[in-house]
Amino acid sequence: MNITRREFSRLVVLSAGVQLLPRISALAEDRTIGYCIVGLGRISMQHFMPALKMSKKARVTALVSGHRDKAERMAAEYGVPSSSIYNYENYDAIAKNPNIDAVYIALPNSMHAEYTIRGAKAGKHVLCEKPMATTVEEARAMVLASETANRKLMIAYRCQYEPVHLRAVQLIREGKLGTIQSIESAFGFPIGPNEWRLDQKLSGGGPLVDVGIYCLNASRYLTGEEPAELKGFSSVVDRDGRFAQVEETLSWTMKFPGGALASCTCTYGSAMRGYFRVRGSSGTITVDPAFNYDNPRLVAQFEGGGTEELAPAEPDPAQFLREADHFADCILLNQQSKTPGEEGLRDVSLIAQIYRSCERRNS
Amino acid sequence: MNITRREFSRLVVLSAGVQLLPRISALAEDRTIGYCIVGLGRISMQHFMPALKMSKKARVTALVSGHRDKAERMAAEYGVPSSSIYNYENYDAIAKNPNIDAVYIALPNSMHAEYTIRGAKAGKHVLCEKPMATTVEEARAMVLASETANRKLMIAYRCQYEPVHLRAVQLIREGKLGTIQSIESAFGFPIGPNEWRLDQKLSGGGPLVDVGIYCLNASRYLTGEEPAELKGFSSVVDRDGRFAQVEETLSWTMKFPGGALASCTCTYGSAMRGYFRVRGSSGTITVDPAFNYDNPRLVAQFEGGGTEELAPAEPDPAQFLREADHFADCILLNQQSKTPGEEGLRDVSLIAQIYRSCERRNS
Repeated sequence: MNITRREFSRLVVLSAGVQLLPRISALAEDRTIGYCIVGLGRISMQHFMPALKMSKKARVTALVSGHRDKAERMAAEYGVPSSSIYNYENYDAIAKNPNIDAVYIALPNSMHAEYTIRGAKAGKHVLCEKPMATTVEEARAMVLASETANRKLMIAYRCQYEPVHLRAVQLIREGKLGTIQSIESAFGFPIGPNEWRLDQKLSGGGPLVDVGIYCLNASRYLTGEEPAELKGFSSVVDRDGRFAQVEETLSWTMKFPGGALASCTCTYGSAMRGYFRVRGSSGTITVDPAFNYDNPRLVAQFEGGGTEELAPAEPDPAQFLREADHFADCILLNQQSKTPGEEGLRDVSLIAQIYRSCERRNS
Repeated sequence: MNITRREFSRLVVLSAGVQLLPRISALAEDRTIGYCIVGLGRISMQHFMPALKMSKKARVTALVSGHRDKAERMAAEYGVPSSSIYNYENYDAIAKNPNIDAVYIALPNSMHAEYTIRGAKAGKHVLCEKPMATTVEEARAMVLASETANRKLMIAYRCQYEPVHLRAVQLIREGKLGTIQSIESAFGFPIGPNEWRLDQKLSGGGPLVDVGIYCLNASRYLTGEEPAELKGFSSVVDRDGRFAQVEETLSWTMKFPGGALASCTCTYGSAMRGYFRVRGSSGTITVDPAFNYDNPRLVAQFEGGGTEELAPAEPDPAQFLREADHFADCILLNQQSKTPGEEGLRDVSLIAQIYRSCERRNS
């Protein structure tokens, strides 16, 4: 059976946080949330900012960039006054800008902690890209800084707001798969040379922190559990200079308290379309592609022959719009986001454990 | 591009062991190999014996069973004289039967060693189902017994004779994928209660020894290497009494000397269509389904956009015919099979290592 239009609409509502809606509708007319975009790279300029153009709840009100020319161009496009363009030195001056409610941190990973903490100290809410940080200590400091400043911190786990992923979780919670036995997931792409992602100081790791984190995070929200144990291996096979500092490929296995085993693989070595497959005692769900910016596709097969397909046509940047609006709702209603700093911290901590496991020889 | 008929024919020839063919064609007219079937279970009666009906090189000449009635019925069907029906007590009397060249061991795993060794001592070549044995010691004793008796021992790794698998290996060896980075593979089925496979004493293990061995063996022939390290987890989630003695699901990762990482999952808990996916720096090969008795399907994608598909229509028991004929050729020409006892021993040894790893906590 295919999902009906009505069921899909219900999922979309669910994904926006259905409990918030009645109050939002009144509030949303009053004001919108102003985002200060920190870092004008691909994810900001091609995805997050275009999403805000479509938003009724949020808009771009300020920019932070080391490239004034680029910032001026984007400011013109988004109607941001020149006085609301900042650089990395005078970033703290955002404190005095009442048009900024929140900052969106889209910098190399190693800068997430500093700019999140400075943002919170400037009195702003923070939406930070994943991985939240390059160390557990940084991630803890970010959570603490947000708490101390009484500001919100959300990590940009867009898939946790995406209807196809939410449907997978819903089917599992409703028991349609029985008990979860195993998860297989992979994600990767062939990285070019000279990317900041290959610089350990900037990235804090290789494909694990960048794309493997999708498999990790999905395994956690699909099972609804935290892994009890994990074991991994990392490797480099392409000796062309790209992988002098970070791993090329990493495979790891996690065991969850309920007994589910998750096998995950990530790579910078080849095109590995992101997917996951969840198998239970009474059914299987495959989402493939799963982690792209658009067109996720769910196929579920249940014991007894039932099936379900869900492949909504939602072009990019719908997923970014959803996460930007969710955080705007949280700010307007003073509620915690679904993916707060603590959620990012868990992944950062698990990533550190996976790297430690890779260093151990266990054969 | 799809593979041409001529190319496929070449693969089929390759799979029969091309170097043997010129001499076989002369020999094959002279005589056929007589197989004594040891154990009249599903794999014998529904697959191996029907395959021999199609063979020009081999035939069923004797039976060993604990069920005389069943043996009489099968003997009638295959033209086996009553005098060539044995039971487990008088099995050694096959030594005096000149119509038996080889025995085919299709018994519960824990009986493989004894009946292989007794077969070799009776002067017969042995084709033994996988897993070869339940312990490394047994497997070593089997190899030794065959050597001592100067008889051949082949393990029934049918996929190593199958054109789609051989094409995958060929593409890899020709460098079409560049360097192998990762392998993902899984295989499983929902087991019924009361199967001998669930009895540790008979099976020697759960899905790992039964279906996971396909993923393990494939990872080895695809890379052409032996794993340098491995780490695994096993689990039981269905507490319905089936998994009191063996694992329900097992996931493990292997690191190969060349750097390839293989992630494998096997289960008795759900239908997990057997597949493998090999990713390299310049291409990907998926064989899905891979391990069924029929209809394997290969899809390869190469850097630059080239593709290849191979999905020959070869109904069961073609794969059994091929392995039976390969061993017949080996006997006729006094050559070593492609999957001798040593090949089975390697898997048995790795399986023991995987189980030991599952007992260790490594988080």
